[in-house]
Amino acid sequence: MEITFRNISDDDYPYVISNLNSWWDGRAMVNMLPRLFFKYFKETGFVAIADGKVLGFIIGFFSQDDHRDAYVHFVGVDPGYRNYKIGKRLYDFFVERVQGAGVEKIFCVTSPFNKNSIAFHKRIGFEIMPGSNKTVDGVDFFSDYDGNGEDRVLFVKYLV
Amino acid sequence: MEITFRNISDDDYPYVISNLNSWWDGRAMVNMLPRLFFKYFKETGFVAIADGKVLGFIIGFFSQDDHRDAYVHFVGVDPGYRNYKIGKRLYDFFVERVQGAGVEKIFCVTSPFNKNSIAFHKRIGFEIMPGSNKTVDGVDFFSDYDGNGEDRVLFVKYLV
Repeated sequence: MEITFRNISDDDYPYVISNLNSWWDGRAMVNMLPRLFFKYFKETGFVAIADGKVLGFIIGFFSQDDHRDAYVHFVGVDPGYRNYKIGKRLYDFFVERVQGAGVEKIFCVTSPFNKNSIAFHKRIGFEIMPGSNKTVDGVDFFSDYDGNGEDRVLFVKYLV
Repeated sequence: MEITFRNISDDDYPYVISNLNSWWDGRAMVNMLPRLFFKYFKETGFVAIADGKVLGFIIGFFSQDDHRDAYVHFVGVDPGYRNYKIGKRLYDFFVERVQGAGVEKIFCVTSPFNKNSIAFHKRIGFEIMPGSNKTVDGVDFFSDYDGNGEDRVLFVKYLV
């Protein structure tokens, strides 16, 4: 299977958003990914394509306030295509893009219950940020970080 | 009552996010406003403060891809303080900031059912964008714009 990668476009949004919840095991993710991320941050968003179908995507951006920082808001891969390292390769495109612009640190957050995401981010060089106020099953996280009940593990990857 | 305005800070997030749903008549808004907007877009976000309390806020950003465009993701005012033109004044700060950086167009979206928001945006100089695929009660909107069932009215305000 030949997988190609390119920057996201507006036209990718309908397919991605209608598959989003199922890619996340049925969790309600749609409200976290409004179309704005596909309209105003195309430069740092990428999709993986095979047979004309989106197999995965990464949505990130430069910090607007500090150009040494960047943030990844979403990375997702079609569960039917989990053995092609698509998530890692999407991150590689993102890292190359932001590193070329002088970014020194990439941040992201994930749910403490998303063990796959935590393992994945550690594998590709992210560290869990200290200062958390809770630990469950050995995972440090910040309770209510994104609102009431929305606990998050905070990750950072140093590029320099 | 003396109202002061300043840029948003990380510390504003917990108060805003715990009041968000009630400011929106009980709608589930929290997932649409993750903390990232208070961490990486401080330069174009503002809060209104009186008696040490946040009375309103605006969250927006420059398009990362086209610096002639900016976008407002959220503007909210405590329902107990609706007669002080706080929303308009928050927008004034945003417009001044982005216009000073060369922005020519500001975009935002709102729910077709949010009549207050539609009236407010028209009052402060936004126009409803053409090209919509649905009209209800004379309001043009795009169905499923932000995902299945997430219809949106699209607004633009021209600064030049």
